[in-house]
Parts: sequence; structure tokens; C-alpha cells
Amino acid sequence: MVGYKFMGKAHSHAYRDVSFYFDNQVEPVLQAICGRDQAAVKEAAEKMGWLSYETDWRALIARDDIDLIDIVTPNSSHAEIAIAAAEAGKHVFCEKPLAMTLEQAKRMLAAVEKNNVLHMINHNYRFAPAVQFAKNLINSGRLGRIYHIRATYLQDWIMDPQFPLVWRLSKEACGSGAHGDLAAHSIDLARFLVGEFNEVSGLMETFIKERPLVEGSSGLSGSASSSKTGPVHVDDASLFLARFENGAIGTFEATRFAGGNRNGNRFEINGEKGSVRWDMEKMNELDVYFHDDEVNVQGFRTISCTEEGHPFAAAYWPAGHIIGYEHTFINLVVELVKGLEKGESPAPNFVDGMKNQAVLEAVERSASLKRWVAISEIESKFS
Amino acid sequence: MVGYKFMGKAHSHAYRDVSFYFDNQVEPVLQAICGRDQAAVKEAAEKMGWLSYETDWRALIARDDIDLIDIVTPNSSHAEIAIAAAEAGKHVFCEKPLAMTLEQAKRMLAAVEKNNVLHMINHNYRFAPAVQFAKNLINSGRLGRIYHIRATYLQDWIMDPQFPLVWRLSKEACGSGAHGDLAAHSIDLARFLVGEFNEVSGLMETFIKERPLVEGSSGLSGSASSSKTGPVHVDDASLFLARFENGAIGTFEATRFAGGNRNGNRFEINGEKGSVRWDMEKMNELDVYFHDDEVNVQGFRTISCTEEGHPFAAAYWPAGHIIGYEHTFINLVVELVKGLEKGESPAPNFVDGMKNQAVLEAVERSASLKRWVAISEIESKFS
Amino acid sequence: MVGYKFMGKAHSHAYRDVSFYFDNQVEPVLQAICGRDQAAVKEAAEKMGWLSYETDWRALIARDDIDLIDIVTPNSSHAEIAIAAAEAGKHVFCEKPLAMTLEQAKRMLAAVEKNNVLHMINHNYRFAPAVQFAKNLINSGRLGRIYHIRATYLQDWIMDPQFPLVWRLSKEACGSGAHGDLAAHSIDLARFLVGEFNEVSGLMETFIKERPLVEGSSGLSGSASSSKTGPVHVDDASLFLARFENGAIGTFEATRFAGGNRNGNRFEINGEKGSVRWDMEKMNELDVYFHDDEVNVQGFRTISCTEEGHPFAAAYWPAGHIIGYEHTFINLVVELVKGLEKGESPAPNFVDGMKNQAVLEAVERSASLKRWVAISEIESKFS
Amino acid sequence: MVGYKFMGKAHSHAYRDVSFYFDNQVEPVLQAICGRDQAAVKEAAEKMGWLSYETDWRALIARDDIDLIDIVTPNSSHAEIAIAAAEAGKHVFCEKPLAMTLEQAKRMLAAVEKNNVLHMINHNYRFAPAVQFAKNLINSGRLGRIYHIRATYLQDWIMDPQFPLVWRLSKEACGSGAHGDLAAHSIDLARFLVGEFNEVSGLMETFIKERPLVEGSSGLSGSASSSKTGPVHVDDASLFLARFENGAIGTFEATRFAGGNRNGNRFEINGEKGSVRWDMEKMNELDVYFHDDEVNVQGFRTISCTEEGHPFAAAYWPAGHIIGYEHTFINLVVELVKGLEKGESPAPNFVDGMKNQAVLEAVERSASLKRWVAISEIESKFS
Repeated sequence: MVGYKFMGKAHSHAYRDVSFYFDNQVEPVLQAICGRDQAAVKEAAEKMGWLSYETDWRALIARDDIDLIDIVTPNSSHAEIAIAAAEAGKHVFCEKPLAMTLEQAKRMLAAVEKNNVLHMINHNYRFAPAVQFAKNLINSGRLGRIYHIRATYLQDWIMDPQFPLVWRLSKEACGSGAHGDLAAHSIDLARFLVGEFNEVSGLMETFIKERPLVEGSSGLSGSASSSKTGPVHVDDASLFLARFENGAIGTFEATRFAGGNRNGNRFEINGEKGSVRWDMEKMNELDVYFHDDEVNVQGFRTISCTEEGHPFAAAYWPAGHIIGYEHTFINLVVELVKGLEKGESPAPNFVDGMKNQAVLEAVERSASLKRWVAISEIESKFS
Repeated sequence: MVGYKFMGKAHSHAYRDVSFYFDNQVEPVLQAICGRDQAAVKEAAEKMGWLSYETDWRALIARDDIDLIDIVTPNSSHAEIAIAAAEAGKHVFCEKPLAMTLEQAKRMLAAVEKNNVLHMINHNYRFAPAVQFAKNLINSGRLGRIYHIRATYLQDWIMDPQFPLVWRLSKEACGSGAHGDLAAHSIDLARFLVGEFNEVSGLMETFIKERPLVEGSSGLSGSASSSKTGPVHVDDASLFLARFENGAIGTFEATRFAGGNRNGNRFEINGEKGSVRWDMEKMNELDVYFHDDEVNVQGFRTISCTEEGHPFAAAYWPAGHIIGYEHTFINLVVELVKGLEKGESPAPNFVDGMKNQAVLEAVERSASLKRWVAISEIESKFS
Repeated sequence: MVGYKFMGKAHSHAYRDVSFYFDNQVEPVLQAICGRDQAAVKEAAEKMGWLSYETDWRALIARDDIDLIDIVTPNSSHAEIAIAAAEAGKHVFCEKPLAMTLEQAKRMLAAVEKNNVLHMINHNYRFAPAVQFAKNLINSGRLGRIYHIRATYLQDWIMDPQFPLVWRLSKEACGSGAHGDLAAHSIDLARFLVGEFNEVSGLMETFIKERPLVEGSSGLSGSASSSKTGPVHVDDASLFLARFENGAIGTFEATRFAGGNRNGNRFEINGEKGSVRWDMEKMNELDVYFHDDEVNVQGFRTISCTEEGHPFAAAYWPAGHIIGYEHTFINLVVELVKGLEKGESPAPNFVDGMKNQAVLEAVERSASLKRWVAISEIESKFS
Repeated sequence: MVGYKFMGKAHSHAYRDVSFYFDNQVEPVLQAICGRDQAAVKEAAEKMGWLSYETDWRALIARDDIDLIDIVTPNSSHAEIAIAAAEAGKHVFCEKPLAMTLEQAKRMLAAVEKNNVLHMINHNYRFAPAVQFAKNLINSGRLGRIYHIRATYLQDWIMDPQFPLVWRLSKEACGSGAHGDLAAHSIDLARFLVGEFNEVSGLMETFIKERPLVEGSSGLSGSASSSKTGPVHVDDASLFLARFENGAIGTFEATRFAGGNRNGNRFEINGEKGSVRWDMEKMNELDVYFHDDEVNVQGFRTISCTEEGHPFAAAYWPAGHIIGYEHTFINLVVELVKGLEKGESPAPNFVDGMKNQAVLEAVERSASLKRWVAISEIESKFS
């Protein structure tokens, strides 16, 4: 894997966890991670469980113990690394957007095809169970002919004019702003669910045209800013209308200036027989409307896509125990481990378990006697 | 760890992932797992990454390469295992409810205290970031004196009268039904957030009093049922009113007969200065009301507890990328791995990346030229 | 009608509007209104369209041009007035709760029955279209056997300890606090939708036990308070568990101390085949779950109970134009009337209409020419 | 008033009710209503309380007992009637959209200005209290500089291809389809809240290009259709992007093909300091986000715009008793009136009141005795 920040963390975690949940035959081995800063990449490798590390991606590609190159670097380096990997006969998994330009993208595609290596791009939102389920409904004809999609991807993390010119706001590193970062996700969801685009009419805007420069290192944190400012060359917002090949029409809006929306990746699709609605921030739910529901009880249903029959869901937890449920356990184990470090029983412990039991028994006794029961009455039975 | 089913999976996952996200000094080692069915426990050990397995929990406790015993067995065996583990000098982490009876719970507590081992009980819902944040608000006085809690834990998985008499419906194995399984969680959340109970008045009900017996194996699936039926001795629903030591009052309802509610673990707490509301099925959100908000703009706020300052949240993803976000990556990697198995590029691949890029560029061109741009116009530039 | 405050206003409005919407044969005539304060009742009569007024309810009852006596006075006077009206051969429509005590209620019922007059009580929430529709679903068996009801009526208007001891907090005037005011509504909805109560276990609490006395007049406003305080004899909150004759069980909570809940009259009912949920603050919606929905698309549907087939709905507006829609017109007409008073065209006026038209035409032109169109380009065509 | 269908009903109701709620000095008198079908207009006049009627709008305008002409006819006749009314010295209140073309609109504006009469246009959604409150927030600078508006008006009433070619789908009568009917509302809300439009890029689409012709009468019901079909010349959907004079940008979508959305008139506005969101189907609520809320408790608040300080709200009901609350009374009075017609006490009546009282007393007794109390125990006290 080349790169180890936000996306590197998400990819690493997925490689580690996939075989825990699923019964895949091929099991990923986290062979090597690569980054230019030796100390940082070494730490990342240890933290995330990679067996080795490299500081030059060319060295990584040259290794013959590696089958797949995963590219999670800024957009500007995707093409060079991917093509080199393909030329070296490695399978390639690349972060989105694939490239800085269509011309680059075509060269990348040509390279993987010529060298006969497998390739994948990380449009991860396709893989939310609710999105896959929406796809199933559409494919099975439950929505009929598609008329509309309206997709938004709303964020607000750079609204402060003092937020600095980090790499994600750099034309050189990213090619665009909200457009390639956010609209690219909505475009992929639309292609996945509705079909191919035919034509578009767009509008791009940069609201804050000058921002403080970052001194030294860059990064999402944007904490280290200088007193100098520089011009912003990427878009803060990208809006467009679209016509699809199948006659559907759509509105798209990607912005980093929608206050109060931290990660509002949402869509609604309307077909002749039904509609679906999804919101990433409630990712386990799909709202579904069927026109053939009987009169008077038509309405959007909120479906928790966590049943055994929902895509990917059987690998995880029982119905209603949403994806994310397991994090309550991880967080609890943090406390457990801290307790072991300190030699102190963490809360909740057996004292809590005992007091909980006292309440449970008081309720049972109350239900049986049909009167109020004090906890002290229960506890005194054993004191 | 003793046991390896639903809870065993959740615990195992937490041990594996904790050091990936957090900077704990003590790192859990998954030394050994224990179960009576040798084939099944062996498979579980491999699947979940345990280094060895045992088929007798006494053997597990006897091993000196183990510091902590994690008990995820049915309730009826908690006391015996926990006390034995404590006697052997092992730290003990136990599933909830701690015991079948208050008397058992007291003996368990006495055992860990006498043997000076650390102990913890798995009330995992305390550790949702939104719940911890609610606790912070209460502790800091933001809600003032607490007047009310209303807590429900609503499920619907046994509403079919033909659903069989699985072990979770067995008085011998569990002690109670919804009461110990669900109400115990609400009681813990109430103790955590409001304080100690003073007295209660309860009602317990079994709606379906006779169910098909399970032949052979038992389990949540309940698929294998026989033609014979047996009486249900545990409650389907448990309701109670409560008074707390600090003067607050509460209503509690736990049921497995609330159709449409898959896992409705919810509470609302009202204090003199504010209120909080939480719903497990939207676990990243906390609704908060502050009475001192200025007049006319008072209302419940929906807070996405994913900011750096929210409890545990900094270990995970950027704001709005809710806990669970990483599963889109895991699901994607399943497809990637399947592609490698089959020797086919999975979707989305570089073809998709290229087409996405074409749309991105068409929008940019449209925005620049202030007219509609066909995708074919863009693609033909490079063909 | 005896009384003319909050409830008097709601009743008067209903008499005025019923024949506008519905095709009833008997048309209410607002013959006379009654109150002790002559100036205030005269003003109320004029404001609300009553043809005459009285200052003594005995005089009202004595009039032979009146068929129906509507009692909207504080609870303490219901019995005396209702019984006198019945004795005088008048039909009686009474505010809820019917009486201060069951003994009073029984005497009132005996009086109307003995005198053979018609009688009705104002449990108005039964008549929300969504509640009536829930009743239809239950009656038609769509929910099957009822297992659960959980009903809350949550308000927060007296949480300030400095809020004075108004008549609604007076034991003498009202008999109880939240109990008779709010729980009475939930009890009626439960009787309407679930059936008769069998037994109950309750808890009543007064959180603020001493409040400032009101000097002079009383009333909901509570603005005029004195420096003296007095004890509060009514409940701030009333909670209870219930068993119904048909085997259903329920939790009920009425409180004036649930911060952030202005008028949270809500219920959820779970039956063997389905569930319904309602919230007065979203009164046009009913959430409905059907267990026989096909697997994987089960979920609560949000139904806008405004279709022609929904109870009462056909009398009002087209689907989705919720009850309340007409108030946008009332508010607009206020501005229109103010404009006439001032001799100024109110906003929006024909200037707005013209500018709106310019945008509409610019969009049409843009859609036709497939390029951006400036508003000035359109406007200049006619300048 | 010229016209008496859907809009005629809404306007008539507003004239009748305005003085009931508000303290305006000028009180509307419903002098005369006008329509071509004598029987229908006579019935409408009686039903809605107009003192007289005319069958020729020229006759209406010629009357000297009329000060204001209210035009609720199809769009094609607005200009002719409005100009004639202005020439006759009448004030004019006109339905939206003002005209069929900008040219007509300019002539209408010129006519009212030349004749010095007052004029208003019915963009009623401005007058929802929540929308007015949004306006107040924006005007007071609480949202700061406006960046975005995204407005949708989604309906679904003509999705059935067999729905006939009613007058609202006629180019001659209406000029356009969703565009003038729905987008005109969103444009007005945007002008009201954000400011003047600068330029637009649009897309209009007709999904169903041929529909059954209506035989004989026309109308929204569309029930009477013939076997012949005709072409649809108006748009089913209208989408556009916009730039505003103040630098804000927007997306707009109006459609009658968004299944499951009965009347989805919604907008979200994002400014540098805050955001607001509104949905007509929850018209009493405004979601508000303030960027200057303290860290960790930022989130959209759901504000019930029913407090005394909210625009227009003081004229109606107490906080939380949303606009529409009074309809529960109207619907109840329908039952009361029906009871009088039939000579039967409607439900709920004094029997219900008595039974309700029994439950209330049982709860009180239970709370006092701290044990369960059967209803029969209470009732038997007085039998």
C-alpha cells in the first residue's frame, strides 16, 4: 500500500477485518506499506499491522512478494504509480478519483489492460449494505423506469476563511476541490444505480478565494498556518444538472460550504413504481416507497438494512444491531485494557453487575407481589 | 474466552481491533478460546484469530499463560466460571447480566474481591460515544437536576408463535427473558446516567405461553423446531416504574413483542436545564436540548458525536464519517478478494474510474463554457 | 358556551368552520357565550362571532333559544353546570376531564341519561385524521391482537420554579395537575384504540413544591406573580403501568417537566401483525409497520394521512397539503388587510410576480438554448 | 373573487378566519364570488359564505360595492382580469404565477401602477411562521453571507400514464406544468430569503408525452377520461442551477414525478454563520444550525415555530399546539353535529368521561397506596 493517512487507515483496517467476518478463500496479507517519511511510515506500519515498510514506491513495486499495489496517495501521483505497478505485473487497487484528467485515466486503463492485471477503484459507498440493497431493488425492476436522481454531498469543514491552504485545496495535488473529492462519489453512485451519463450542465464556485498558507507539513488538520496567504485554485462547490442515457434526469451538488452537514452524502431516486432515499450519516437505513402499496398506506418505509437477507449484512450482527455496534465493544475494551495497565477494575464492574441484579430482582418481586419494592428490601435479604 | 457465539464474536473483534485504533500500552493477545464442541471451537478459533483452544473451561483457567478470563456463556454458568477464575487468580471480564440471582452476584463479587483480581462486566452500550457524551453533559451540570428518564428496549424477533423455545427463552439457562437480556441494559444506562435506584414497581408478561421445542441443537436461529411444544417460563416483556435516590423518576420497558423495532434501545432524560435523547439504531447521534438557548431558537439539536472532542471519536474517522463507515471498505475488499480468487477485475474498476473522470471533466468544461456538454464530446477528445 | 379562554377559542372556531368544510345538515349557530367578566366576555363574543353574551351561566341555561350547552370552564364547575343544563333539557358538550371525581362523573352521567339529553366530551385528539386512521387499521384487524401501548404526553411550560401558582396548578380548580390535564388524553386514546383498562399501578410526583402566588387575576400567562409563595398540591408528573381487559399492557407518562417537549402527545401500539406510531406535533403523519410486508422491505412507513380516503381528509386539501396549510393563506391575508389599512401594496406584489416571471422565462429559455441565460437578458427583451 | 375551486376555497377560508385570530381594523366582507357555471357558483357562494355571486367577471368588476378583486382563475386569464380590475379602480389580489409571460406580467404591473391601486400576489408559503422566522434570522444576520440554497418542490400526482390531460396539464390554460405551478413557489421563496437571481441554467422534461383526453369537464380529479389521447405540451419536471446577485448559488427542482412525495416543498439555505431547513409537510418546524454554537454541541435544532415570539404564532395556540391543532376540534364538532342530526350522543360521551375518570382515580389511589389497583375496585366504591 502506498500512503498511510486517512484512506490508508481505512484500507488497512479492511484488509485486517475482512477474513474475520467473511469466508473468503484468499486471505489478504499486509505485506508492506510505503511512505516517504521513514519515521512516520515505520510507526504506521507497526500501528496498523503491516509486516514491512518502504520509503520509495518504486522499491515497493519491485518486490516480488507483493501481488497487489494499493494506491492511497494524493490524486496527482495515481497515474504514475498505477502505470508502473501495472507494468511490473502487479494488480492495482486505486483510490478515487482515478486520475487528474481523463487523459491520465485512459492511459491508466490502457496500462492495466495491456499488462493483464486486475484493477479496482475505491468507490466505497457502493458497498454500504443499504446502497447495495437499493441496487438490488432497481435491478429487479421494483422501481420501474427511473425518472429522477437528486444527489448531494454536503460538508462544512473548510468554511472558516482562516482554514489554511492544505493539500486537499491544492490544484496541483488534487486537480479539483469538492468536485473530485465529493462529486466523484455521487457520480459513481449515479452510474451504479441509474446508468451512464449523457450530458451535463455545471457550475463551480470558489467562495473563499484566498487562504493562509501552510508552513512546513500539510494535512487535513490545517493547524499549522502561516501569516502569508495564497490563492485558492480549486472549487469550494460543484453543482450540475444531468441527463442520463436512459432518459433519467438528475441534480448534483457537492460542497464544503453547507454548514451543519458534516458528511451529507445523500441521494433520492424516483422511478415509475417506487423511490429510494439514502443518507450516509444514517448508513444502515434505506427509505423505500412502493407505488403499488395499497391505497391509504403508501409512504416511505424506513428499512434497517441489517437483516440476514440484506447485502453483506449476514456477515455482521443480528437485525437492528447496526454496523457500528461492535465499536461499543472496542471502546469498552479500551477501558478494560486501561484498567489492566493501572491495576484497577474499570467501570462497569462486578459491583455494577451486582447492583443491576438487585434492580432486576426488585422488579421481579414487585411484579409478583403487585406492589412497590425498595431496592434496600431486596439487598437486605442477603446482607 | 469461554464461549464463541454472538457475544464471543463481538468480544473477539474488539480485542483484535483495539490497538489498531487506540494507543494502549497493554496489547491484548488472543491466547485461547474455549467451547465444548471441539470442531466448532476449533473453527471459531481459526476464524477469529485465537492462538489456541480448549474444550473445558477448567483447563482454560488452569493455564498460566492467561491473565484474563472472558465469560460469554449463557447466564447460568457465569457464577461458577467467574468464581473459579477468580480463585485461580485470573482477572475476570463477564457478560451481562452478571448472574442468575442477586445471591450469585454477591458471591461473584466477593470472590473477585477476596482474590484481588480485576473485574469488569460487559454493559457495552455505555461505550457508544453519544452515550459517553451524554454522561459528560450530565456530569458537567449542563442538564441540572434530573427529573425524568424514559427508557425502552424494543425488539420483535420472537413474535411468531412458531418461533421455538431456544436457549434464550429458557428459564434454566437465562433466568429471565426480555428482563435480564434487555431491561438489564436499560438499568445499567440509567445507573450510569441518572444514579442509583431507590424503589420500583413492575409488571412482567409472557404473551405466548407455549412454543415448539427445539430438537437437537439450540440457538438464536430457531430454525430447527420439533412438532412438540413446551411451556415458556420467561417473560416476553418487562415494564417498570422507578424512583431514584436523587428524586428522579423513570419508566422502563423491555420487550420482544414490539413489531417493527429490531433493536430499539432508546432513552430520553429530562433535567431542569436540558434534555438528551438517544437511539441505538442511530447510535452516532445524540439529540440535546438546552433550556438556556435563547428564546425562539430552543429545540432539540441532532449532534453527530463524531467530532474530535467527542468521547472515543478521535480514534476513528473524520467528523460525520460515522462509526460503521469503515465497513464500506471491508465490504469492498470482499469484492476485491473475490476478484483475485476468480482472476477478474471486480466492479468498480478502472473502466468506472475513467468514465467517472469523463463526467467530472464534462462538468468542468460545462461550467467554464456556460453551456451543456455531452460526455461524448469529452470522450472524443482522446479517442 | 360557558367560558371563553384557550378552549373557548378552539371550540368557537370549530363551530364557525365546520359547515365551511363539511356538508352537515344541522348548522351550528353561535347563539350566546357566557363569562363572569362583562367587559371581557363582550369582547370575546365580538371577536369570535357570538350573537349575544351572558354573565351568569344560569341565565344562559334558562334561555330557550339555546339547544346545546358547551362547558369550557375549569374542571371544578363542570358537574354543577352540566347537571343544571341537563335538568333544563339542554344537550351538553363538556370539556375534559369530565369531573373532579368519579362520584361527580357518575352524577353527571345520571343527569344526562335521566333527562334524555345528548352528551359529548371533548377528547379532541381522537379526531386527528391519523388517529382515526389508526383506529380503522386496528378495527379492520390489520394489527391483530394488541400487545403493547406506550403513551406519553410531555410538556415543559412550568419547569421554571418561578412560574406562579396559576389556576391550572390549583387543586381546587382542577383536581390534579398533569394527571387530569394530560394523562386524561392518553387514557382516552388508549380506550379508543386498545380497549378498556383492567388495572393500574401509578406514581405521581410534584418536583417543585412551592411556587409564587398569583396576585389578582389568574391564568396561563402567569405573568403577574407576587413575592409570596404557596404550596403546590397537584402533580407535576403522573406515570403508570396498565393491564387492559384484552391482555394488552401499557406504559403511560404525563409530565410538565420534560424540557424541550412543548406538546409531546405521542403513542406507539404494537400488535401481532403490525404497529402504529403517532406524534401530535406531526399530527398529519402516522407511522405504520406491517409484519406481513415481504422480507427485507419491512419497516415503519410514514403515511401522510391527507389522502381522499383518510378519515376527514377529503373535506380539506389535496394530498400532502397538510391540515394547517390554510394558515399560510390566513397569514397572507393579514398582510393584505394591513396593506389596505395603510394604503400600501403589501409584499409580495405584482413587482414580485413580474420578477418571478422573469426567472421562469429565463429558465425556459436556458432549457431551450442549452446555455446559461442571465435574467437581464430576459428583462431587456421588453424594456 | 373570480374562481371558486381549490384556491378559491383556500382564499375564502382565509377571509373568513382572519379577524377571528387577528386584531385587524379592516375586516374583509365576502361581497361576491364569480364563476361561469351558475349552479356551481351559487352553491359555492352558499357553502363558503359569500353574500352574492356573479357569472361574468366583468359584471363583478363593474360593481361599486367591491374594493378588491381576488383572481383565482387559471393562469391564462390573470392578465385580462387584473388589468380590467385595475382600470376599474379596484385593488387586485392575484394567484400565482402572475401571468403566462413576462410581457403580460409587465403590462399587469403597469396597469396597477397607472391606476394607483394596491396589488398583491399569492405566494402563500412565505407566510408559514417557520418561513417568516427563517427570514427574520437571515435579516438579523444570524446566517451571515449566504452561500447556498437547494430547493425542491416534489409531487407525484400525475405519475400514472393514464392520468388524463386536465387543465393543469394544458399549455393554453397554464403556460407550463411543474415549472409555473411549483418552481414559481421555490423561486419566490428564494427571492424572499436569499435575494435576486442573476442567471440560470435549466432543464425541462416531459416524461409522459401522450395522455388520455378529458371528456366534458376538466379538473384536478381527472376521473373522467376518454379513450382518445393527446400530446402533453407542458413540462413534468423543471430543474435549474442559479447564481444570485449576492454571490449565492442554488439548485432548484420542481417535479410531478417524485413518487412518494405528495407535496415536498422544501429548502435548505447555508450561510457562513448558520443554516436553515424547511419542509412544507412539517410546516411548523424549522431546522436551524448555528456555527457559533459551542464545539461538540453543534447540530441542527428542530424548532417548533409556535412560540409567542414566532411570526404570526401568537394569534393561534399555545406552544407546541401546532397550526392544524384546531382541526381536531372541527372534526369533533362534525361528529357532534351528526349526533344532533340523528338524536344520538356521539362518542366520546359522558360514559367515556366517567370511565376515563375511573382510570384517573385508580392511578391516584395506586400511587397513594403503592400497589396495583383494579378499575373494578374503584368503580365498586360508588355502585
